[in-house]
Amino acid sequence: MSAPLEDFYAVIPAGGVGSRLWPLSRAETPKFLHDLTGSGVSLLRNTWDRLLPLAGKDRIAVVTGQAHEAKVEEDLPDILESNVFIEASQRESAAAIGLAAAILDRRHPGVIIGSFAADHHISRQRAFEFAVQQAVALARAGYISTIGIAPSEPSVGFGYIQKGDELDVDGAPMAAIVERFVEKPDLETARRYYADRNFLWNAGMFITRADVLLAELAANEPELHAGLVEIAAAWDTERRAEVTDRVWPGLKKIAIDYAVAEPAAAKGRLAVVPGHFDWDDVGDFASLAKLISGGRPDTMSVLGENEKVMVDASTGLVVSQTERIIAVVGVDDLIVVDTPDALLVTTSAHAQRVKSVVGTLQQNGRDDVL
Amino acid sequence: MSAPLEDFYAVIPAGGVGSRLWPLSRAETPKFLHDLTGSGVSLLRNTWDRLLPLAGKDRIAVVTGQAHEAKVEEDLPDILESNVFIEASQRESAAAIGLAAAILDRRHPGVIIGSFAADHHISRQRAFEFAVQQAVALARAGYISTIGIAPSEPSVGFGYIQKGDELDVDGAPMAAIVERFVEKPDLETARRYYADRNFLWNAGMFITRADVLLAELAANEPELHAGLVEIAAAWDTERRAEVTDRVWPGLKKIAIDYAVAEPAAAKGRLAVVPGHFDWDDVGDFASLAKLISGGRPDTMSVLGENEKVMVDASTGLVVSQTERIIAVVGVDDLIVVDTPDALLVTTSAHAQRVKSVVGTLQQNGRDDVL
Repeated sequence: MSAPLEDFYAVIPAGGVGSRLWPLSRAETPKFLHDLTGSGVSLLRNTWDRLLPLAGKDRIAVVTGQAHEAKVEEDLPDILESNVFIEASQRESAAAIGLAAAILDRRHPGVIIGSFAADHHISRQRAFEFAVQQAVALARAGYISTIGIAPSEPSVGFGYIQKGDELDVDGAPMAAIVERFVEKPDLETARRYYADRNFLWNAGMFITRADVLLAELAANEPELHAGLVEIAAAWDTERRAEVTDRVWPGLKKIAIDYAVAEPAAAKGRLAVVPGHFDWDDVGDFASLAKLISGGRPDTMSVLGENEKVMVDASTGLVVSQTERIIAVVGVDDLIVVDTPDALLVTTSAHAQRVKSVVGTLQQNGRDDVL
Repeated sequence: MSAPLEDFYAVIPAGGVGSRLWPLSRAETPKFLHDLTGSGVSLLRNTWDRLLPLAGKDRIAVVTGQAHEAKVEEDLPDILESNVFIEASQRESAAAIGLAAAILDRRHPGVIIGSFAADHHISRQRAFEFAVQQAVALARAGYISTIGIAPSEPSVGFGYIQKGDELDVDGAPMAAIVERFVEKPDLETARRYYADRNFLWNAGMFITRADVLLAELAANEPELHAGLVEIAAAWDTERRAEVTDRVWPGLKKIAIDYAVAEPAAAKGRLAVVPGHFDWDDVGDFASLAKLISGGRPDTMSVLGENEKVMVDASTGLVVSQTERIIAVVGVDDLIVVDTPDALLVTTSAHAQRVKSVVGTLQQNGRDDVL
């Protein structure tokens, strides 16, 4: 493995609940705290381990909520306490990543930050590192850079990044300018993208000099930028709580994609590196089933107490978090998620609709199971 | 309602576990002790209530196992203690009904008995009573009689009775001789039977003078007959336990259909009355789903804690015996049975295969959940 990159800080926003993975993922123990791949550790810890060779243990920061601080520090015993940035409340990704950028830019002027979701799955470490190294080289040259995943199938589940002209930057042999972002396509369009090879999955990874990101934010969302800079100035002082309590609640809720990436792309300042590694956002149970089965279609995958699950000619995924016997007889692409206080039964084809169940539970005031 | 019939005793064999209804039905609380129809009382109690106008409360007997004696008496508070016949161990229907026949024939020589399963569903009480009254009239005339259900569809799930020549017996205007019994047919044959109208479902109801049944048993299964007569002679004496313990374990395990009904049919001594009422043996969850939905195909039926079950565009049956939230999203003909220590997920099409799950659990020594 390579030595940690100079002046590079990895930032892990650990915020989302993952409501399409209910009832496995809950507000109290969101997706990133779960071992969804059978690796023995949480997705967050997988993310840490993946970034460790690139950034080193003293240069990985996590942005998370008060409720998860203890569990994050338990999962990541080597993290510096000063690198755990607590959000007073959820303010979406522009505020979360912007806060980290503003704090780290004060601490380490000129630092390059890379933001990587806490709850995605990636395999092929070397290819991942190669992509990040190129993205860091692009950041050094002043670009905001992203890693786009080379599609392994014509997916309709992800947004796409269209590659434009190739770039000639030292240390980034595969880089190109981002032509545009496109939303999740229909299947026909996805097939066209897949054949084209200039379309990459948008994995939400951004690598940039912190000051470049802040400048872009200042141009597009000046109030948000001003608030974040004010909080960052107070962060490493005794005024942190006072300023945060006053400023944070008024910050705009907006995704980094809209506040930074898309405007930068429109100005030709966004670069992309194709990532030739396996990536999955584990967005719903269909995606999880595929991940656990390794793509083998004729198996019933089991996450949890394996020996209590009896399967008779069925395919799909069983997640078991109880001591109960689970018998599944003859259902294709079935998804069963068995937890102590809630049971979900659906199929891969309907996995996206799980979110609506969570919405109904919210409307019904059933916060006890959310 | 009519006055109770003279010299008529109803006998309810309450023995089978109903393993195709696992994990709802267990060895400890078999099918007949469950309220499967949402009526508020058990199938056994439904059976009692149905027979009460025909036999009166002092002339209904139940044959059951030691393990269920207390629950049977709790469900049927009006039953005479002397009318609860405890089987020392399961010996199938010929022994169970034969024991009742032998005991009741000693107590009431010339008595007519009718045997009705404890765990079937019947609606349309008047039509049921009309059929039993005719069957009793046939029994008075010396026939062994059965009630065959006029099919409501070309079912492959039941055995059939083929009607022969019509009989001219007072009080039994619709009676006919049984031509033959036929096993569960394939769909094509079932369709032919359904169109024919001379084929009725075999619901396992037998009405006969007890001494006629015993004579038929003596002719076909002399050892079984001798054993039952010996036990019956001791039953209402202090020697009951001693004789039962000695003789019962050696009795042949055979169904009443083979030991009595089919041989009687072959000799032209079996009569049938068509029953024009709704009947279901509630043999598996597909059958239960149909029963609860009232045959409406586009509904998700729920048995149990209704308000905890959330259904999004699915059809089938959810049985809930826990306090857990159950969310079902987009699965057709799904069957979910949620109990404190076991969960079953299958579809109507595979409901028959549930029995194999029970078989596997038996092989694995999991008697704790059987």
